[in-house]
Amino acid sequence: MSVHLRPEEIEAESFRIIEAELGAHRWSEREWPVVRRAIHTSADFEWSQSMCFSENAIDSALAAIREGVGVVSDTTMILSGVSKLRLKPFGITASCYVADPEVAREAKELKITRSILAMRRAGREAGNGIFLIGNAPTALFELIRLVREENLRPRLIVGLPVGFVGAAESKEALKELAREIPELPFITNTGRKGGSNVAAAVMNALLIQAEQ
Amino acid sequence: MSVHLRPEEIEAESFRIIEAELGAHRWSEREWPVVRRAIHTSADFEWSQSMCFSENAIDSALAAIREGVGVVSDTTMILSGVSKLRLKPFGITASCYVADPEVAREAKELKITRSILAMRRAGREAGNGIFLIGNAPTALFELIRLVREENLRPRLIVGLPVGFVGAAESKEALKELAREIPELPFITNTGRKGGSNVAAAVMNALLIQAEQ
Repeated sequence: MSVHLRPEEIEAESFRIIEAELGAHRWSEREWPVVRRAIHTSADFEWSQSMCFSENAIDSALAAIREGVGVVSDTTMILSGVSKLRLKPFGITASCYVADPEVAREAKELKITRSILAMRRAGREAGNGIFLIGNAPTALFELIRLVREENLRPRLIVGLPVGFVGAAESKEALKELAREIPELPFITNTGRKGGSNVAAAVMNALLIQAEQ
Repeated sequence: MSVHLRPEEIEAESFRIIEAELGAHRWSEREWPVVRRAIHTSADFEWSQSMCFSENAIDSALAAIREGVGVVSDTTMILSGVSKLRLKPFGITASCYVADPEVAREAKELKITRSILAMRRAGREAGNGIFLIGNAPTALFELIRLVREENLRPRLIVGLPVGFVGAAESKEALKELAREIPELPFITNTGRKGGSNVAAAVMNALLIQAEQ
């Protein structure tokens, strides 16, 4: 029975099923492991249609990982989902400031969302790092502002907020920003879908590639 | 611009959009907030087709929450996603044993997955509690075995593993179990989709109802 397979055998079998059912696709050899892991984590083949990568996204991400840059996220769920075991050999610290008491205090005082303030803090702490956004469109909009107005230059933006208010629009704003700044490395998608689980899966797929 | 709405306004607007786009549905007044939050967290309307509740699921869950029973999950992502703020007034402790060193040691020794051993431990620690499974089919299969063979009687099983190997089958096994034990309270779905994000969303929706 399939449940008696070891975890790595289950993963290999899952990938085999995904590839058999999807058939031909448009992804490069280095993009595909990222898209495949997004499908694997969500059981949703739509990711094969909706994901997009800047041309330099994987190069920039792998170099940044190998340098051990900081990783910041907009949710603690992403932190939980990114493999600690895979971060460790690169000496990477992953952080999320949304539950930080200082951020909460400031949010109340300034009457702006904790997501926005957490992104500003992330910009100060890990400006040249990897930014993983899997929940809040406001976080991605603020990150876009930091890049455009304050010259923040992340080594990778994973822009995958989810939802019905602003999520799709925030991703289009990211693509618009990348037309202004063509060297900006990003991975995003089109539409409302996204999520902390998929953002973490993208990061894990990149960590696995960086090991090789 | 929509991004300047407060978080609770964004949520209300999201729910309005979900209800407007979905139109008529088959859910009861108390099931709908759970299904709606699953759609909200995933931007995937398929949840309105694929979810299923045992008749007593919500009653049993709300009573258990109000008694402050233990909550256990198969992933730390679920723990991150369940609102600590909402657990606290009920005095509920949420736990996940999959990263427990003892579980890891035993898994190596016995050559069975950590998910299975974490579920056994959860059964010992919180047998009459709420079980949230959002990732591993093996965890749900083991929970089913504990109910059938060792008389474990959870107050709610949220069975939402995701993936291509065993996930759909584990949910059908849960429904089969519920035919043998008609009083077993469960929330699950049909098919491969699932995930820690949706399992956490279901729990949060139940906590909100229990407050009322």
